[in-house]
Amino acid sequence: MQSYVNGEFHSADKAKISIRDRGFRLGDGAFETILVHAGMPYQLALHMERLEKSLKYLKIKAGTKKFPKIIRTIIAKNKICEGFVRVAVTRGQSGFGYSAKNTGNPSIIVETEKSGTTKLKPAKLWLSSYMKPLPMPGKIIGNINSLLSRIEAEENNCLDSLLLDGEEKICETSSANIFWFLGRKLFTPKSGIVEGTIRSAVIRLSPFPVVRGDFTLADLKKADAVFVTNVAWGILPVKELQPLGLKWKNHKKTKILAQLLEADIHGMG
Amino acid sequence: MQSYVNGEFHSADKAKISIRDRGFRLGDGAFETILVHAGMPYQLALHMERLEKSLKYLKIKAGTKKFPKIIRTIIAKNKICEGFVRVAVTRGQSGFGYSAKNTGNPSIIVETEKSGTTKLKPAKLWLSSYMKPLPMPGKIIGNINSLLSRIEAEENNCLDSLLLDGEEKICETSSANIFWFLGRKLFTPKSGIVEGTIRSAVIRLSPFPVVRGDFTLADLKKADAVFVTNVAWGILPVKELQPLGLKWKNHKKTKILAQLLEADIHGMG
Repeated sequence: MQSYVNGEFHSADKAKISIRDRGFRLGDGAFETILVHAGMPYQLALHMERLEKSLKYLKIKAGTKKFPKIIRTIIAKNKICEGFVRVAVTRGQSGFGYSAKNTGNPSIIVETEKSGTTKLKPAKLWLSSYMKPLPMPGKIIGNINSLLSRIEAEENNCLDSLLLDGEEKICETSSANIFWFLGRKLFTPKSGIVEGTIRSAVIRLSPFPVVRGDFTLADLKKADAVFVTNVAWGILPVKELQPLGLKWKNHKKTKILAQLLEADIHGMG
Repeated sequence: MQSYVNGEFHSADKAKISIRDRGFRLGDGAFETILVHAGMPYQLALHMERLEKSLKYLKIKAGTKKFPKIIRTIIAKNKICEGFVRVAVTRGQSGFGYSAKNTGNPSIIVETEKSGTTKLKPAKLWLSSYMKPLPMPGKIIGNINSLLSRIEAEENNCLDSLLLDGEEKICETSSANIFWFLGRKLFTPKSGIVEGTIRSAVIRLSPFPVVRGDFTLADLKKADAVFVTNVAWGILPVKELQPLGLKWKNHKKTKILAQLLEADIHGMG
């Protein structure tokens, strides 16, 4: 597998970045993980739009125009049929400290991974003791609370965490957006989240009315069924929220959505 | 200048880390910046203690026992008389995503910088529009609000930012702790801060009574004099807080503290 590092392709063991890079020193950058099906990136334009928002948020001056070509090149080079492309942009190299004066050119890193072969089972989530930090427009490298919430979930034999904000509103998991059904309606938080591209697809494809709002655990407790969405898991049913002991079983409507998503990915809609 | 990267010393242009390292991918690590005077690290034990707290917070299993030897070796190799050593520890390499399962060994990076020659003038601070994130025990790589607050300050021609928490309490700057005088008393925030090693030295050395507490901008407005502390700036008087238009001129007591700190550093107390 080859990786793209600042204009050059290198094999995995030689794909390296300077220790002076602010991505490494300070988490100073943003990234996108893009689903690849049949060798094609799914919803690439949405990812590029979000990456531009992240770079604007970080005040990193890097255009994304050349990325689609690099992404298509690396998919071909690494023969990725089913898998993922990860694009990262950092502010570039500088001395010690946060000061962004005298920073070099932004770094651009593009990598691929093939899809795993194990089929995921309905997930257990862990209610995080970490608070969701302030809203970020996209995937920012330095997002330590989400990361620590994931580790906490894994320590408790759960796949992922569920994070609330400072006002106890439900936000998202460390890596995915959350949805739930109550009757025929589909609910999902509207604030304190990264707007996932699979979340966007679900909202676009859903035959069930979608309600975007601010919700608390009291709302989730009433849910008939719960699922999470991201590019790695697609639409993944949630069976438990621990340590609260909440359980959900009825995944019929979730399966309908999963089939619609699959059709959309296969049609690259 | 040589840098230490996972057991090997490399020249600056060859000091690189895998793009798979979670420090680079996710800001998943901690660091310390240590002052060097006359070739000796100042308050090294305090830094190692804080680094251990950071690693515990991140649940990264890496001992710090061998660091003092590496630090002394690199100071000698790079002939650092006056300068800084930066020690970074990351969780190591893994695949895409936050999951910390199947992570390799922690990465250890040690670098040096020589002190600048320009004498710093009393600083202008910028009241940050970014909120201080949840308290962290030490210097965590992924700390994006502090980083963005520094960039915002620099855009406004200020040296550094001043961050408040969600309850409008004064915390710290992006890179330094804050102190102020009111009469003979010295005040400094006690919560929402990284406990800086120069802050500790000031508290230890101060002949003025030190009051650690929770304070707001109303308290700072009454101050006779303000200064900030970190290993790069030592004790640096603050002359303005913008955009509030607050100004301070009386740096007499601050200078007394700066002399006491200098004596302590020279004596390696």
